[in-house]
Amino acid sequence: MDKKGSKGSAPGSAKGKKTQDEIIGRAMRIAAVEGLGALSIGRLAKELRMSKSGLFVHFGSKEKLEMAVVERAYDIFSGRILLPAEEEIPSGIEQVWALCDLWLKIVENPLLPGAYFFTGAFWEHAPQHGAIARRIRQIIEEWLTALRRAVDGARGRGEIRRKVDAERTALELNSLLIGAQWSYLLADEDHSKARLAILAKLGALATEDIPATAFDSVRDWRRYLEDRHE
Amino acid sequence: MDKKGSKGSAPGSAKGKKTQDEIIGRAMRIAAVEGLGALSIGRLAKELRMSKSGLFVHFGSKEKLEMAVVERAYDIFSGRILLPAEEEIPSGIEQVWALCDLWLKIVENPLLPGAYFFTGAFWEHAPQHGAIARRIRQIIEEWLTALRRAVDGARGRGEIRRKVDAERTALELNSLLIGAQWSYLLADEDHSKARLAILAKLGALATEDIPATAFDSVRDWRRYLEDRHE
Repeated sequence: MDKKGSKGSAPGSAKGKKTQDEIIGRAMRIAAVEGLGALSIGRLAKELRMSKSGLFVHFGSKEKLEMAVVERAYDIFSGRILLPAEEEIPSGIEQVWALCDLWLKIVENPLLPGAYFFTGAFWEHAPQHGAIARRIRQIIEEWLTALRRAVDGARGRGEIRRKVDAERTALELNSLLIGAQWSYLLADEDHSKARLAILAKLGALATEDIPATAFDSVRDWRRYLEDRHE
Repeated sequence: MDKKGSKGSAPGSAKGKKTQDEIIGRAMRIAAVEGLGALSIGRLAKELRMSKSGLFVHFGSKEKLEMAVVERAYDIFSGRILLPAEEEIPSGIEQVWALCDLWLKIVENPLLPGAYFFTGAFWEHAPQHGAIARRIRQIIEEWLTALRRAVDGARGRGEIRRKVDAERTALELNSLLIGAQWSYLLADEDHSKARLAILAKLGALATEDIPATAFDSVRDWRRYLEDRHE
């Protein structure tokens, strides 16, 4: 094996797994700023100082590589937002808040530069055809379903008014979140606005079971949630 | 001049202008689905059956071509949304509505496939550097300023409550609009939801000068606006 191809270990081995991770990591960093469209086996091989054939051992096509990057992004999305909100937070308005709050945390403290995951990728691929576009749409549907289910749960517990349309609310919360990311990209450093907008929305939907003063500020809201658990 | 290069007319001439328009039109169609990143002089030359050098006569660099495409998109944006709303509609809540309504009309009846202009381009370029990214951010700022100014105008006329924050409202209306486009891209064909969400937002901001029943449906709202002009 020549030096250039030395990272091209067999895909199944532990070393091969490490190489794959490295390739996906680098690909994610490129895509995060320039989009999946900017990925190419040639560019990756050059940046990772691997041979093209060494790369092809792990990802036989550009589409396979793109899909691996999308799945890695999904794992982050799921592990940092969906699972903590749905498994660690009880059903109810608190879960609606947790989904939005955790989403904003990813935007505020991005693991990767740029806004590609989990918004830009959607704009790039939603109008396209093929497996990647389908998978991205599916992930977005999963996210909207999680929001809708959380709103339904809060309604079921009497915390959100009965007549509130859960699906429309999910879309509106999602709108506020992507709008917040939009503002950040315009170099607006004031991260508090987005949470206030979400909180105002929840305040408008809530029943009288929740004291109106809980919605006065994000601090009041967090204190209210803490007190509930005592 | 050989046949392949026959479209490469002198840039200043009438024929040259026509060729330029043709190049920009084709470039827009590619970018609308795949992004500005997908443009290349080579690909365009092939699709337009021109020589690369013929193309270079008109656009000396990929960046110049990209900028021409962005300016063409801006002309559409300005001619279909900003100018009609700001010059033909009187200042007030009606102008806020007109900006949102015209924006949704472009999304509903796209001149070009895809969602690239005027949302995807922002997600692709906002995190990047250079002249194109700056110009795109500038256009978005102009849009948000138009929304904010319209909200301010409506507040000045006593149609929107005094304590409403115009800047935050502009961001929230923009959120609802990009959220609506998001839904359309998920193949949701129900275009009425987005207007209802905008109308509900306006209803929540409005003073008692506007009868609450005006906000009952988009039809009621349009009728109310018509009656005002009589």
